[in-house]
Amino acid sequence: MDLQSGGNGSLRIVLDWGTTSFRAFLVDHSGTILDRVETADGIRTVVDRRFADIVACLLAPWRDVHGSVPILAAGMIGSRNGWFEAPYVATPADARDLAAAVRTESLQNGGTITFFPGLIDRTARPFPDVMRGEETQLVGLGLERDATVILPGTHSKWARIEGGRITRFRTFATGEVFATLADHSFLANVANRSAEPNWRAFARGLDVVRAENGCAGLLSRIFTVRTGWLASAIDAGEMIDYLSGIVVGSEFAEAAAQGWHADGDAVIVVGDKDIAEIYRVAAEGFRLSVALGPENAALVGCLRIAAELPRL
Amino acid sequence: MDLQSGGNGSLRIVLDWGTTSFRAFLVDHSGTILDRVETADGIRTVVDRRFADIVACLLAPWRDVHGSVPILAAGMIGSRNGWFEAPYVATPADARDLAAAVRTESLQNGGTITFFPGLIDRTARPFPDVMRGEETQLVGLGLERDATVILPGTHSKWARIEGGRITRFRTFATGEVFATLADHSFLANVANRSAEPNWRAFARGLDVVRAENGCAGLLSRIFTVRTGWLASAIDAGEMIDYLSGIVVGSEFAEAAAQGWHADGDAVIVVGDKDIAEIYRVAAEGFRLSVALGPENAALVGCLRIAAELPRL
Repeated sequence: MDLQSGGNGSLRIVLDWGTTSFRAFLVDHSGTILDRVETADGIRTVVDRRFADIVACLLAPWRDVHGSVPILAAGMIGSRNGWFEAPYVATPADARDLAAAVRTESLQNGGTITFFPGLIDRTARPFPDVMRGEETQLVGLGLERDATVILPGTHSKWARIEGGRITRFRTFATGEVFATLADHSFLANVANRSAEPNWRAFARGLDVVRAENGCAGLLSRIFTVRTGWLASAIDAGEMIDYLSGIVVGSEFAEAAAQGWHADGDAVIVVGDKDIAEIYRVAAEGFRLSVALGPENAALVGCLRIAAELPRL
Repeated sequence: MDLQSGGNGSLRIVLDWGTTSFRAFLVDHSGTILDRVETADGIRTVVDRRFADIVACLLAPWRDVHGSVPILAAGMIGSRNGWFEAPYVATPADARDLAAAVRTESLQNGGTITFFPGLIDRTARPFPDVMRGEETQLVGLGLERDATVILPGTHSKWARIEGGRITRFRTFATGEVFATLADHSFLANVANRSAEPNWRAFARGLDVVRAENGCAGLLSRIFTVRTGWLASAIDAGEMIDYLSGIVVGSEFAEAAAQGWHADGDAVIVVGDKDIAEIYRVAAEGFRLSVALGPENAALVGCLRIAAELPRL
């Protein structure tokens, strides 16, 4: 396989097709983004598995101009809920290991789509832990230096980079718990949402977790959103950010209990700007030294993995 | 005030009007239920605060036969989200303390409605903890013997009865977290629900919590519903009950960390049959000795509190 072949040898399309959004980037050989398409056609919204039709439709303008351009697809589109279930590569792994496990499929219009594998950590209990997409962010961040990396999101990941490879990771359902509670719990009828985070309310949520010194637990903390409101200590406009502090803080407390960090450790947060800032504040609240990774880590990682692909 | 006055001196209506359901019981002086009304008109569904109209409408048949019958109302209908915010009585408290804090309102049709107070535990941190309705279940269970009581539900309560009074309690948002995740998370698209609990899957969820010996945390456990499914260790029909085991088990782990129970302790579970059975199994999984309280505890408790009301 030669990713430089096709209608335009110097171009690639990097497809970041997740559960709730469709993002595609047209990039040249140097990794410069020439154009992008972003829509809300997440894989959850796709009916009758019409993945190929959606790709053909949304990327038709590029095809009209550039002909057939190879597509590189990472993340949930390559999961069991997606288009094609790509394999998982076991940790420890680097970009070359990931490249060795890609699966390339032909499209009806003559193009190709290459699904990147996910990563599996078989040391996790009770079941192996998995990621899809975050491994490209880690490769994009760079595996040269040892680091503990937080990748916040619906299923937030803590990952360890050691000796040039991703050695282990663990998932926390932080964003899932936060969003379902914010949208569908007792909060939904009471809380007022604001466009900007209320950092004071967020810090109070963090403080509740930290004051417990670890272990009291999320189920009782969550109810303090209601008791704080009833006690007139938290107003309707603060409830969502206070909840965010409780849930994100609980992730840091659980990660500490599992040995992922201790006072004074350094961590790197990789993610979109808004959520990375939330995690930066939380990490500092837990006395960690924080650096932010590049926002384009996923794209850079895809291209680095692609650069390791053998030319067949 | 004389609750025996009105159109029919020997009758009372006990109103159990909660967030998601409306239940009213017509009872005679001995506490025997003569008739009942149950609908899905929970207080969440009431628009424009038309509580009085709904009561007048749903209870009109009884009024036509029996005239004006005093209404006793406990639970969420007396909360800030309900018809009238009744006060909270501070722990420790017994039936007489609760009776001393009722609020009786006149209805437009000439009847009265007596709102029972809730209970507040000001020793809880970071905010006082509260209950509304469960205190009538505790009074119905009986305060004569010391006991640790679990009242499972959307906001599950652990309460301590000592020296004839309810001395302290703590809330866990167990049902809230379970239901929002089951209905709105990554599970919603994958899991198959069954009418009967899959006890084996539930026990596996409990085991995951117990194997951690307490503290690893709910956010990472929740994700094992997905990793177990991906590992083909949990099938789509087992996911919901496995999640239930994880979340209910986490309540027991958190309660243990907070000193509510230790191996071999005795607890009493008070609640509707199905959920009480789930908690009985969980309690035994955590090596507790379990007794089930009466299912009619709330009704009995309302009548006991009413029996303490002064006749004005």
